[in-house]
Amino acid sequence: MATPRIVDLRRGVLEKNDVLAADLRDRYRAAGVRVSNWVSSPGSGKTALLARVLDHTATLGVAAAALVGDCASDNDAKRLAVTGVPVRQIVTEGLCHLEADLVAKHLDGWDLAALDMLVIENVGNLVCPTAYDLGEAMRVVLLSVTEGEDKPIKYPQLFSSADLVVLTKIDLSDAVEFDAAAAMAAIASVNPTAPVLSTSARTGLCVDELIDHLLEAHAPGDGS
Amino acid sequence: MATPRIVDLRRGVLEKNDVLAADLRDRYRAAGVRVSNWVSSPGSGKTALLARVLDHTATLGVAAAALVGDCASDNDAKRLAVTGVPVRQIVTEGLCHLEADLVAKHLDGWDLAALDMLVIENVGNLVCPTAYDLGEAMRVVLLSVTEGEDKPIKYPQLFSSADLVVLTKIDLSDAVEFDAAAAMAAIASVNPTAPVLSTSARTGLCVDELIDHLLEAHAPGDGS
Repeated sequence: MATPRIVDLRRGVLEKNDVLAADLRDRYRAAGVRVSNWVSSPGSGKTALLARVLDHTATLGVAAAALVGDCASDNDAKRLAVTGVPVRQIVTEGLCHLEADLVAKHLDGWDLAALDMLVIENVGNLVCPTAYDLGEAMRVVLLSVTEGEDKPIKYPQLFSSADLVVLTKIDLSDAVEFDAAAAMAAIASVNPTAPVLSTSARTGLCVDELIDHLLEAHAPGDGS
Repeated sequence: MATPRIVDLRRGVLEKNDVLAADLRDRYRAAGVRVSNWVSSPGSGKTALLARVLDHTATLGVAAAALVGDCASDNDAKRLAVTGVPVRQIVTEGLCHLEADLVAKHLDGWDLAALDMLVIENVGNLVCPTAYDLGEAMRVVLLSVTEGEDKPIKYPQLFSSADLVVLTKIDLSDAVEFDAAAAMAAIASVNPTAPVLSTSARTGLCVDELIDHLLEAHAPGDGS
């Protein structure tokens, strides 16, 4: 479908993004900050779960911060600001994914070395964020129980790129007749190695375990 | 962010799409077929609701057909095939939206004049399908009660382009503490004119009304 010129240009954009992402990864590694990139459908509960994580990291004495991406509005940053953790909104003005240069610009003035953990919440989209490295050490792909167990099969590129898969809204499993075995099989069919966590922002299920995973998000070569 | 060359090329792609979409619209009008383009998040329940619609149109003697778009897999076409209605899967191989040329190719061999209604189920994505006209007379944007009431504010371009907004999974409203007034206010803030239907594929709520709307999807200038 796409013409060769457009394919070439897109490749150029991705190559430029990869260079910037590698710079970011070096900065994160030098600062010793664990960085994760959260990707999912719109409405899968990224922000609600992140609010639980940030509430809990504060009580643990973990220094966390968040960048949240949306096409429009600063709703998510407002929701997270109540946790007291540093949060910045990236408004993409219609762009369907975050890119490394947007992330770099929004880090200006933050002392990364003072942080233990940085969470980047991507724009809600199961396709377009896939190819854009943000320098993260861990890509977290979230799937809510309300979305249907077959989503990993319908969006295999993204799910295969996950370092960690997080099932969300587990408290709604009965109401939506969620078939956990079918979901696990769908995830495993496209990504047999990523750990899978079953979480609930409502009940706090597995928030501790999620934080443990996030704190283990070392970039390759990072011995800290 | 995007360089001028990329912006120019994207404009070219959209202009080419608009020309093809205008051709499609002429074909639909000549055939007297009502065409709708269904767009939503992944997992908002497009396919389940469409299955209810197709089951019901069959009993009404309405000749319907469906094109369903996905990045990968033919799950949706299989789910809809049980209705006995003609269904074709468009596998986009990673492309995040449907385009008019993809639709045109998948209409080959279908007698549009024998159809009363054609539903095009887009790839699950609240951003990228927005700018791509598929020649439809009616754009249907779906929002499930599980996704959060603020989605129209976070994805205003798509919601403002809707001719009809369909709330889905209304049967789950209590389980997710859905705030219908907040959702209606969010929709109205970006699209004050589109009618809003509250539906449930599980209970069949408002499926009749949805079919009535779909059958009124005339292209401009179509007096049929």
